[in-house]
Amino acid sequence: MNATAATWRQRERPLRLERRVDFDDYAGTRDFLDAVAQFSKDTGVYPDISFGRTYVNITIHADPPATDIAPEQTAFAERVDALCASESVTSGG
Amino acid sequence: MNATAATWRQRERPLRLERRVDFDDYAGTRDFLDAVAQFSKDTGVYPDISFGRTYVNITIHADPPATDIAPEQTAFAERVDALCASESVTSGG
Repeated sequence: MNATAATWRQRERPLRLERRVDFDDYAGTRDFLDAVAQFSKDTGVYPDISFGRTYVNITIHADPPATDIAPEQTAFAERVDALCASESVTSGG
Repeated sequence: MNATAATWRQRERPLRLERRVDFDDYAGTRDFLDAVAQFSKDTGVYPDISFGRTYVNITIHADPPATDIAPEQTAFAERVDALCASESVTSGG
């Protein structure tokens, strides 16, 4: 079992990792998005992100023709996990 | 024809306005998201937004039980349009 198995949902066709995070208010959402943007600048991993006032969904797609999530993508997911663990966020369904 | 009819696609069930904007690079995407976040703070309108490295999709949902897009939501859409007109962005399909 890898480090992100408990926090990210792996889906197939197309292969991707997904995680949803909920926040108490818009300020929390924005702070989170800013931190994740910095991760992207640091790593070159640019996930698809959708968000509303108090939630963020992150989807990390395997890059075709890759048939697995790349190590740098897993590392990105782990950085998001560490950020979530350090803040008052809740994981949604 | 209202002011946003040429730039936003109105969809039904649920009623919503949608607009996609494409960017040359991630910096453009981030600048745009920051500006739109400020619009939300100014207006209290919090659309659903999805984005990747070089695109942003904005969806403004009518708030149930409303059966039409509210005036402040249309005003928000018009501010986005003005922002797009002032930057080097392209509208995607």
